[in-house]
Amino acid sequence: MTQLFVIGAGPGDSDLVTPKARNAIEACSDLVAYGLYLDLLGDVCNDKAHHDLPLGEEIGRAKLALDLAASGKTTALISSGDIGIYAMATLVFELLDQQLQGKADNPAWLDVEIEVIPGISAMQAGAARVGAMLGHDFCTVSLSDLLTPWETIEKRIHSAGSGDFVVSFYNPKSRKRDWQINTARDILLQYRPASTPVLIGRQLTREDESIRIIRLDQLHADDIDMFTMVSVGNSESRHIVNGSREWVYTPRGYRKKLV
Amino acid sequence: MTQLFVIGAGPGDSDLVTPKARNAIEACSDLVAYGLYLDLLGDVCNDKAHHDLPLGEEIGRAKLALDLAASGKTTALISSGDIGIYAMATLVFELLDQQLQGKADNPAWLDVEIEVIPGISAMQAGAARVGAMLGHDFCTVSLSDLLTPWETIEKRIHSAGSGDFVVSFYNPKSRKRDWQINTARDILLQYRPASTPVLIGRQLTREDESIRIIRLDQLHADDIDMFTMVSVGNSESRHIVNGSREWVYTPRGYRKKLV
Repeated sequence: MTQLFVIGAGPGDSDLVTPKARNAIEACSDLVAYGLYLDLLGDVCNDKAHHDLPLGEEIGRAKLALDLAASGKTTALISSGDIGIYAMATLVFELLDQQLQGKADNPAWLDVEIEVIPGISAMQAGAARVGAMLGHDFCTVSLSDLLTPWETIEKRIHSAGSGDFVVSFYNPKSRKRDWQINTARDILLQYRPASTPVLIGRQLTREDESIRIIRLDQLHADDIDMFTMVSVGNSESRHIVNGSREWVYTPRGYRKKLV
Repeated sequence: MTQLFVIGAGPGDSDLVTPKARNAIEACSDLVAYGLYLDLLGDVCNDKAHHDLPLGEEIGRAKLALDLAASGKTTALISSGDIGIYAMATLVFELLDQQLQGKADNPAWLDVEIEVIPGISAMQAGAARVGAMLGHDFCTVSLSDLLTPWETIEKRIHSAGSGDFVVSFYNPKSRKRDWQINTARDILLQYRPASTPVLIGRQLTREDESIRIIRLDQLHADDIDMFTMVSVGNSESRHIVNGSREWVYTPRGYRKKLV
């Protein structure tokens, strides 16, 4: 049997790596991952063959993982966060699908046993860090227009607005791309108050973590980068201050039954 | 210092409980949780005082956790999944907010140190179990109209449809409530193909887990219960079969660059 584990290693804190992920990595001889993620995982990655490809080489990385597993090496394809959310897992199945349709030439891929192991995603780490920002219906939108046309993304932000979903923006900015988050802000301002709380979380759960809570009308591309995750509350989300601690929570309902 | 940990224990599999959650539970003297969750956690809960309240007593449970912590007992409030997603975390902060506004009479709550620890949510466990269903923008909608008016929920399902989000339905059915998922299906059928893949996952990652992949037009309330999570793909999600394994994935983009 040939085995490929597709593993989400969580946001960064090694105490947020699940035992299931750690055990799977231990069972592997070969790891395919962007180097930084392996650094975060630490000792469990020792004595394994590491295969790295530059950021941007995602398809190559997924193919490499399938090829290694097909060659009989127990292999882990690893990303930070949840590998099923804006990450590598879906590429593995896109490639498998191509093979099943006869559009690729790697029949050995079809014999690989695949197991996907979920991880804590950035939106969850951010929401927990400030309290309970995802306490009611929410959505995620990637602002990367590399593979999705901007018109589709823009339509989706309007839907997030009309549905009053809490919105977590992934890939809010890159080296070549900066204006999208400002446009997203302006769209959401058509649907919810200017005072809506926004979380700007950078390097969540890592040593150089920074957290800012601002108002929606203060959100600006200048204050974020590619290590940032941006979550925007819904129209009922509350920013509260208790002494030196600040929290954001989204009430679980629209009718209050509390006191 | 008085300490309250607000902990998501993941979907059920004890290997999906993070070390951070486990360490926090170990540091506590008192645990507040629905009994079943403690059973799933196992030995780590031994030698702790257990405080249980019936399902439905969520506010009482959150108050009890704050009271215990305020009295000097290091306390954990625990739920399955991610406690920040349709679970208890947001109630803790709603109560804190009431106190800050002077609408409650528990000033000692304000001295409690609160730490929220996220966990793997059911949508993630389900998506991983069938491959990569959450591979592109997604949303969650709770079908419980106990605290949210049905008109708000219905509007949100329309937004999920118009935005072509993958949709994970939480609380799809309860003992007293069964028609909502059928209405949700009919709304989504206005926006995406009848053949859209749907995951029906019951007791995910637990001993009696069951997984079914059906078409959107086959989704029916008779086939789900309150232990079920329902995820509906977007218009591009694919259901593929490789021998005895079935997968669902959602491509990460709308323009294909694959082969």
